[in-house]
Amino acid sequence: MDAPAPTLDVVTVGSAIVDVLAHVDDALVATHGLAKGTMTLVDLARSAAIYESMPPGVEVSGGSAANTAAGVASLGGAAAFVGKVRDDALGDIFAHDLRSTGVVYTTPRGTSGPPTARSLILVTPDAERTMNTYLGVAGELAAGDVDEALVASARITYVEGYLVGLPSAEGALTAAAGAAHRAGRRVALTLSDPFWVQLQRDAFTELLPSVDVLLGNESEALEMTGETDVEAALMALTKTCPVVALTRGAAGAVASDGKDTVSVPAEPVTSVKDTTGAGDLFAAGFLLGLARERPLADCLRLGALAAAEVISHTGARPQTSLAALAAARGLAL
Amino acid sequence: MDAPAPTLDVVTVGSAIVDVLAHVDDALVATHGLAKGTMTLVDLARSAAIYESMPPGVEVSGGSAANTAAGVASLGGAAAFVGKVRDDALGDIFAHDLRSTGVVYTTPRGTSGPPTARSLILVTPDAERTMNTYLGVAGELAAGDVDEALVASARITYVEGYLVGLPSAEGALTAAAGAAHRAGRRVALTLSDPFWVQLQRDAFTELLPSVDVLLGNESEALEMTGETDVEAALMALTKTCPVVALTRGAAGAVASDGKDTVSVPAEPVTSVKDTTGAGDLFAAGFLLGLARERPLADCLRLGALAAAEVISHTGARPQTSLAALAAARGLAL
Repeated sequence: MDAPAPTLDVVTVGSAIVDVLAHVDDALVATHGLAKGTMTLVDLARSAAIYESMPPGVEVSGGSAANTAAGVASLGGAAAFVGKVRDDALGDIFAHDLRSTGVVYTTPRGTSGPPTARSLILVTPDAERTMNTYLGVAGELAAGDVDEALVASARITYVEGYLVGLPSAEGALTAAAGAAHRAGRRVALTLSDPFWVQLQRDAFTELLPSVDVLLGNESEALEMTGETDVEAALMALTKTCPVVALTRGAAGAVASDGKDTVSVPAEPVTSVKDTTGAGDLFAAGFLLGLARERPLADCLRLGALAAAEVISHTGARPQTSLAALAAARGLAL
Repeated sequence: MDAPAPTLDVVTVGSAIVDVLAHVDDALVATHGLAKGTMTLVDLARSAAIYESMPPGVEVSGGSAANTAAGVASLGGAAAFVGKVRDDALGDIFAHDLRSTGVVYTTPRGTSGPPTARSLILVTPDAERTMNTYLGVAGELAAGDVDEALVASARITYVEGYLVGLPSAEGALTAAAGAAHRAGRRVALTLSDPFWVQLQRDAFTELLPSVDVLLGNESEALEMTGETDVEAALMALTKTCPVVALTRGAAGAVASDGKDTVSVPAEPVTSVKDTTGAGDLFAAGFLLGLARERPLADCLRLGALAAAEVISHTGARPQTSLAALAAARGLAL
């Protein structure tokens, strides 16, 4: 029996998080012993201690995979998100902000237990972000929260690497990947964070053979493969995953489908304000390009374009129509 | 018996609110039948309906009197705020953002009943803001929440006009004003909003004789007095209140202490992004000048300077040190 034709381009699976962004100096990051540019999971007490030391912040909806879904929608694609919030004010904010971008979001809310997740994001003068995430109810995303029919209706199911190795959420990840493959769709994964790859190496290694499209940045790829240059890492990863795309910051991005290897420069940005969301938005462009069967070079260009928009302002979701930007570059989808 | 020397410059009293800001077109404001540039109190159902129609937003701490307190602190003054939040996530955000600017904030939190207040703020392309406020627990601020020793320790107690006529909050207003006067301090009030003046005219009329310093904008002053030009309104108001200062948007501001009438032009602003908080920050500069016994012209210049900073970006609190801006203009406090 053939699966019905796909109705969504991309469904993303990850933690539903509200970001608390504040501009700080390097000293504050050092005070808390944090590694700049990475994500650390923190408990409620540590989250409170870091928050106490932060200047006034701005709250915006975030979450890596949710940012990607918002990016796909902004590019004109049909997107859905799977991730868990509580029935609290931050949950209201998260759901509103995502749905109002056009993303389908139907995961049942938690009605008891920990609150909606928040990530304290310290943005330093170099525009780097250091994230401290209290997962709350987002960490309780489970297999039962995954709507398998929704997943089956999408050309690509994209899972954030932050779920890899989380006891409960791995069930959701497995359920989503299984449903996608049974429907004949592709499964994509991002490595998410070099420290996370180091911490969950075994779980990533076990998962990679079932991944059709792998995304990551340079340091994540080197960490995953143990290689010392990005070309070697790319070649190593394509032995396991049919399509691999790696971002290289200001050096652009490179991808391979095992046959061709293509690279693109970064999009020029007048002023980099906040790199939060750069990888998430690259994923949005790249995956929508793949879903629409565009050549690898166009997929990379779409990713670079979306990433450039999001780093030119504070906040990890597009503030202008990416579809219009893409059309202006001859990349209409 | 003499009161102890004041330890605070300004204590402000008002509603503790988290703002939800979104850029929208004029059509959305019209759809909901809202009057652009004003504040409307809405119930939970209406708040939800307006929110549903809004694009993704940004959450930042707000509340007129709290913005003023943050402005006084940014100018280098000693400020406190009196207003009520719940023990919920938005309450945490509000308290954190205010305290981390250096403002003393010790009002007991509500532990039951309605949640922390939020204001849905529609920012139109002309940079005007239309506010829809669900007061929640902020509307339950009562006389018992006012720390009279704190109020007595401040040179000026400033109350937002939005409290005038609210059944419970008027008790808090009366308690604060009484404590200030018993300690030989001055009481300041803002008219807040022309529609609010119209709605609560009797309550404002009853209150004005006990107000030492009255603030407002042009349309509020005309509404309050029934006059048709701002000079006549100013003269009428100084018959009741010893000091009156009125803002006139791009035309600057004017003040009178019954003897002298002084006006200043608006500070030049390269690009007006969002007028939210303009009046609140004018009040911060003007009141801190008064508290430090500066000449009326300097008080106006401090107000104009603080207002100019806040309208040059989205959000109603300073994003740079107002003390440094003031010092650069020879207005160090």
